[in-house]
Amino acid sequence: MSKLFVVGIGAGNYDGLTVAAVKRLEASDLIVGYTVYCELMRPYFPQKEFLATPMMKEIERCRLALEQAAAGKEVSLICSGDAGIYGMASPVLELAPQYGVEITVLPGVTAACSGAALLGSPITSDFAVLSLSDLLIPMEEIEKRTEAAARGGLCAVIYNPASKKRADYLRRCCEIFLQYRPGDTVCGIARNIGREGESVQTLTLAELAEYKADMFTTVFIGNAFTRLIGGKMVTLRGYRT
Amino acid sequence: MSKLFVVGIGAGNYDGLTVAAVKRLEASDLIVGYTVYCELMRPYFPQKEFLATPMMKEIERCRLALEQAAAGKEVSLICSGDAGIYGMASPVLELAPQYGVEITVLPGVTAACSGAALLGSPITSDFAVLSLSDLLIPMEEIEKRTEAAARGGLCAVIYNPASKKRADYLRRCCEIFLQYRPGDTVCGIARNIGREGESVQTLTLAELAEYKADMFTTVFIGNAFTRLIGGKMVTLRGYRT
Repeated sequence: MSKLFVVGIGAGNYDGLTVAAVKRLEASDLIVGYTVYCELMRPYFPQKEFLATPMMKEIERCRLALEQAAAGKEVSLICSGDAGIYGMASPVLELAPQYGVEITVLPGVTAACSGAALLGSPITSDFAVLSLSDLLIPMEEIEKRTEAAARGGLCAVIYNPASKKRADYLRRCCEIFLQYRPGDTVCGIARNIGREGESVQTLTLAELAEYKADMFTTVFIGNAFTRLIGGKMVTLRGYRT
Repeated sequence: MSKLFVVGIGAGNYDGLTVAAVKRLEASDLIVGYTVYCELMRPYFPQKEFLATPMMKEIERCRLALEQAAAGKEVSLICSGDAGIYGMASPVLELAPQYGVEITVLPGVTAACSGAALLGSPITSDFAVLSLSDLLIPMEEIEKRTEAAARGGLCAVIYNPASKKRADYLRRCCEIFLQYRPGDTVCGIARNIGREGESVQTLTLAELAEYKADMFTTVFIGNAFTRLIGGKMVTLRGYRT
């Protein structure tokens, strides 16, 4: 049976790859991915054939990878961060039976982890991961999930906090959290993780509501256990023992 | 200023390490960690000095690593999975100012990602990560967080689902989810991820309530978008477009 590997590449630098991902990409004939991620990986695997497809063409990208795998090539479909979290593993697994291709998913370091490491330790304990993109999930459902995380006292990591069409979504998200936790709750921003221009910043929840995020931003919202310690965003492990 | 590196080692096999973690451990004089993780890493870094401390001695372990770093050694404190998620990054960052040591956190692949990859793609979209350990967080707070995730329609990953003293906690967690989603909701179990005896299993939420988990188990609870496709647990990316 033909095989296709769906590989999480982490933030996009070589050091952020797992050893398993390096071995798998080195063993591949063809590496398929979104243009930006192909460009990030190409210098590290110069002998490999790359097939890049633009953003928003996810299903075409999956079909392309499945077709090439079904034709007998050793193919890796690359995803930024982890292959499963807002990644291509799900649509590939859904389409694979049509192609008779067996899927292996290789996990990677998702932005919740790589961004957290830069900020300190914002998601030490229970947390929610939310995306504010309403391309596939209606905003009403996203708000329901956000409200649940806020009400439940969870820390939160926000992926896709903004785009040109969704300029005010992060503010709406923060307004929901502000109903349940104080404006001085410690929050953090990580930008361009693992890439040129990488930066982090801590700010309050009230300030975050005014922050102009872009698509290279990952947002961290603290809870009642989150502190600023030596400039780092640190969520304590729990109550004092 | 002295430096200490807090390094997430992933599931515990060499292939699960990031390239950055490999380089950092190779550059260390001393590797400090919980006994089990030291034993897992020792074969890959045979020239290194290891200092192992038993489970439950987390604060002593952090102080030991900080003391050695303050004394001028190149020290890495290793954590399973990611260094920040239920890991040592938080207590180390809290204690570091007492030692005048600068902390760098290296992220790793957490069980939510590595377990998900084995099962398919259970956490494709928004999800919560919860621990059922009540050592540091009271059970009443854990139940409040669980209720929020269940009510909000989030997929969930459950760390520490059981121990000898907490034999019925997973059942209590499932009963909360069963108030909000049907008994045939697709769920999954990953055991001994990346180690000998690695296994996965899919089951319904009703079956999960009866499942006897142990401390080597990571649990995945699906939502209304989760399906069984070719034996894999797959959460769809969202509504059909």
